[in-house]
Amino acid sequence: MQMTDIILKKRNNEELLKEEITYFIDGYVKGIIPDYQVSALLMAIVFNGMSSQEVADLTFAMMNSGDVIDLSSIIGVKVDKHSTGGVGDKTSLVLGPLVASCGAKVAKMSGRGLGHTGGTLDKLESIPGFQVEESRDNFIKQVNEIGIAIVGQSSNLVPADKKLYALRDVTGTVQSVPLIASSIMSKKLATGSDAICLDVKFGSGAFCKNLKEAKTLATAMVKIGHHMKKDTRALLTNMDQPLGNAVGNILEVKEAIETLKGNGPEDLVELCLQAGSVMLMQAKIVNNQKDAIELLKNNLQNGKAFKVFEDFVRYQKGDLSYINDVSKFGVAKNVIEVKSSFAGYIAKIDTENIGIVAMNLGAGREKKEDKIDYQAGIIIKKKCGDYVKVGDVIAILHTNHSEYTNEIENIIKSFHLKKEKVDSIPIVYDIIY
Amino acid sequence: MQMTDIILKKRNNEELLKEEITYFIDGYVKGIIPDYQVSALLMAIVFNGMSSQEVADLTFAMMNSGDVIDLSSIIGVKVDKHSTGGVGDKTSLVLGPLVASCGAKVAKMSGRGLGHTGGTLDKLESIPGFQVEESRDNFIKQVNEIGIAIVGQSSNLVPADKKLYALRDVTGTVQSVPLIASSIMSKKLATGSDAICLDVKFGSGAFCKNLKEAKTLATAMVKIGHHMKKDTRALLTNMDQPLGNAVGNILEVKEAIETLKGNGPEDLVELCLQAGSVMLMQAKIVNNQKDAIELLKNNLQNGKAFKVFEDFVRYQKGDLSYINDVSKFGVAKNVIEVKSSFAGYIAKIDTENIGIVAMNLGAGREKKEDKIDYQAGIIIKKKCGDYVKVGDVIAILHTNHSEYTNEIENIIKSFHLKKEKVDSIPIVYDIIY
Repeated sequence: MQMTDIILKKRNNEELLKEEITYFIDGYVKGIIPDYQVSALLMAIVFNGMSSQEVADLTFAMMNSGDVIDLSSIIGVKVDKHSTGGVGDKTSLVLGPLVASCGAKVAKMSGRGLGHTGGTLDKLESIPGFQVEESRDNFIKQVNEIGIAIVGQSSNLVPADKKLYALRDVTGTVQSVPLIASSIMSKKLATGSDAICLDVKFGSGAFCKNLKEAKTLATAMVKIGHHMKKDTRALLTNMDQPLGNAVGNILEVKEAIETLKGNGPEDLVELCLQAGSVMLMQAKIVNNQKDAIELLKNNLQNGKAFKVFEDFVRYQKGDLSYINDVSKFGVAKNVIEVKSSFAGYIAKIDTENIGIVAMNLGAGREKKEDKIDYQAGIIIKKKCGDYVKVGDVIAILHTNHSEYTNEIENIIKSFHLKKEKVDSIPIVYDIIY
Repeated sequence: MQMTDIILKKRNNEELLKEEITYFIDGYVKGIIPDYQVSALLMAIVFNGMSSQEVADLTFAMMNSGDVIDLSSIIGVKVDKHSTGGVGDKTSLVLGPLVASCGAKVAKMSGRGLGHTGGTLDKLESIPGFQVEESRDNFIKQVNEIGIAIVGQSSNLVPADKKLYALRDVTGTVQSVPLIASSIMSKKLATGSDAICLDVKFGSGAFCKNLKEAKTLATAMVKIGHHMKKDTRALLTNMDQPLGNAVGNILEVKEAIETLKGNGPEDLVELCLQAGSVMLMQAKIVNNQKDAIELLKNNLQNGKAFKVFEDFVRYQKGDLSYINDVSKFGVAKNVIEVKSSFAGYIAKIDTENIGIVAMNLGAGREKKEDKIDYQAGIIIKKKCGDYVKVGDVIAILHTNHSEYTNEIENIIKSFHLKKEKVDSIPIVYDIIY
């Protein structure tokens, strides 16, 4: 088999065989096939796409390029949830304990990455003492005992994706549905859960800029799941405003705790109920959405969800006194109210911009080496559809930086007001099976 | 400027600026831009093409990546001719001396390459003693004195093309009109002639498989010439059968000599008259095709063209006694008549196959290191439109190999006969200005 022939085949829009895709992935990971041939193939895939069979074969080959985790010693149905990422997305912190409190098993491995705020691992690590490294045995034991564990990915999880992603990043081949879908799904499948619930976000603060793009990506990923005989479902959710009110690591942990105690912001609660009901059906704990939502609502109100969160923090060596008295987290040196200079209904929030401001305040990483300031972030006080008077506080910035004039200006610029009444934005648009 | 942005721009089908193209070519030649970014850009060009301004800018940047030859000290109009390559293509051997005998100046630099037979340089080197390396001063002096010199390219001619071609070869990006056109034209323009006559061949023995492809490529190259203010014209010529009768280095030199003496095969003579008339008009020696053809015909008959050929061989240290007595070249050990087992009119000759047989007999190079056997080759005895009886000789193989059964079979398979009368194939289909 020759890599040049494989490139030519894709260039000529012919379907690649499973053995050709496996040859390419294996050869690339082993260093036999050079970057320059792979980047040419990737660009041909950008233009000609891939059939659902090809994407499944690619995902399978990528998944098998490293460790594939065996979770069979965990009793019960293991459900995993993955979000394509958004601003203020603390869903996993709530949803994990919540569905575990209902009987589903959440054995989650998370990656780190660049972003406006930290990822799930960073948010958890903002709780003093919290450990995201665990032995495989302890990880499995913990899930069997309390229903949930969230740890860092093993370093040998899908090495093909690490190498491919680094190459895609510098060769203009990031934006490609088959490449994005196989990247996400190879990692999800390698971590061994029985069912996968995807939260595909769209809007100004998300990777997919509109509903159509999100639907295309979600459909591709669900199809991969079906090819692999994994129950895979996807929610299409809105990211045209930050999720909930908090953006930033400790701020989001606090909001997650409030939500687990039944006092969460409306959109975050709604997303957790919708995604949670999908996961409970996948876990075969209930067989309809109505029962699922009732069970989930109860566990948010009766303390069961929060109880699992406490167990989870304790098992992973987090200091529970912070959870029980969140004032212990302290606040950033500077807490600045941003006030509106106009009156009207909020029609649009430039969410990507909100994320960039959060990062500039210290909450996220631009480069891998950057350190996160767990205290930094933003509390959004007004959301789309809300009416704002002149002088109303629209957001509160938290930062340990001494200079933040640009950030204030940028927040003001991110809120677009209209004279006429504007509807609030629903969070879940569709669910793809 | 970032190479990733340039790739993304081309991926998104936006037009690249001259400075972006120059940045890419300069950076690549200097080794600053890696192969993997270049191959991704090349694949994006394969899919999205290039505007004629982009192709001109690419050609200009490539041309300037190495030496650009200054021929201004040659008196008269320097006309260069380039063929995209075919089987039995000895046109330069005839056309060079012929147009020089009419007053045009031919200061030609040729490259080597892989192929069914050697290139022009190899054919010339089959004349004992012939030198294709000359100092720049001697090269210019020779053209001023006898009107023609054909030498090897300087090693620093268009290094960008060498590097790009090697990469294209292994990344499935050879077939692309802007990339082919800029590759050819950058070399032609770097060798400094005033006018360029292109012979773009199409058919089973050519790079372009049909007239449409040839027209597209020719048009792209002529446009590049216009952008560069060089008089560039292109003939579209047929390669659905070998050109003339001889295929192989010494065999082709002998046929060229016969043609220069006025006894050439019809299609080769016609091509030389048509291309020659274009070149004489480009050299402003005549101002219409009728006068050009009359002049060319006269010089083939009155010995003037052959006289220039003799001068040319003598100036470049070739042994003239071989030219004056071609029997001195000797013949290959095995000369095998291939006879037809059927009767009918020849409708089609699989010319690429004929070329491969010639190569297998020893006449060409498959790999760079391969040595050429100058004596090896094929004489085609019947061409399209000819009637053949059972037992008629259709071709004669010349080889120093002792095994050639497959080659005989392959020749027979290459001739497709029909019961009904078939027209002969014209050689020149169109001329593009």
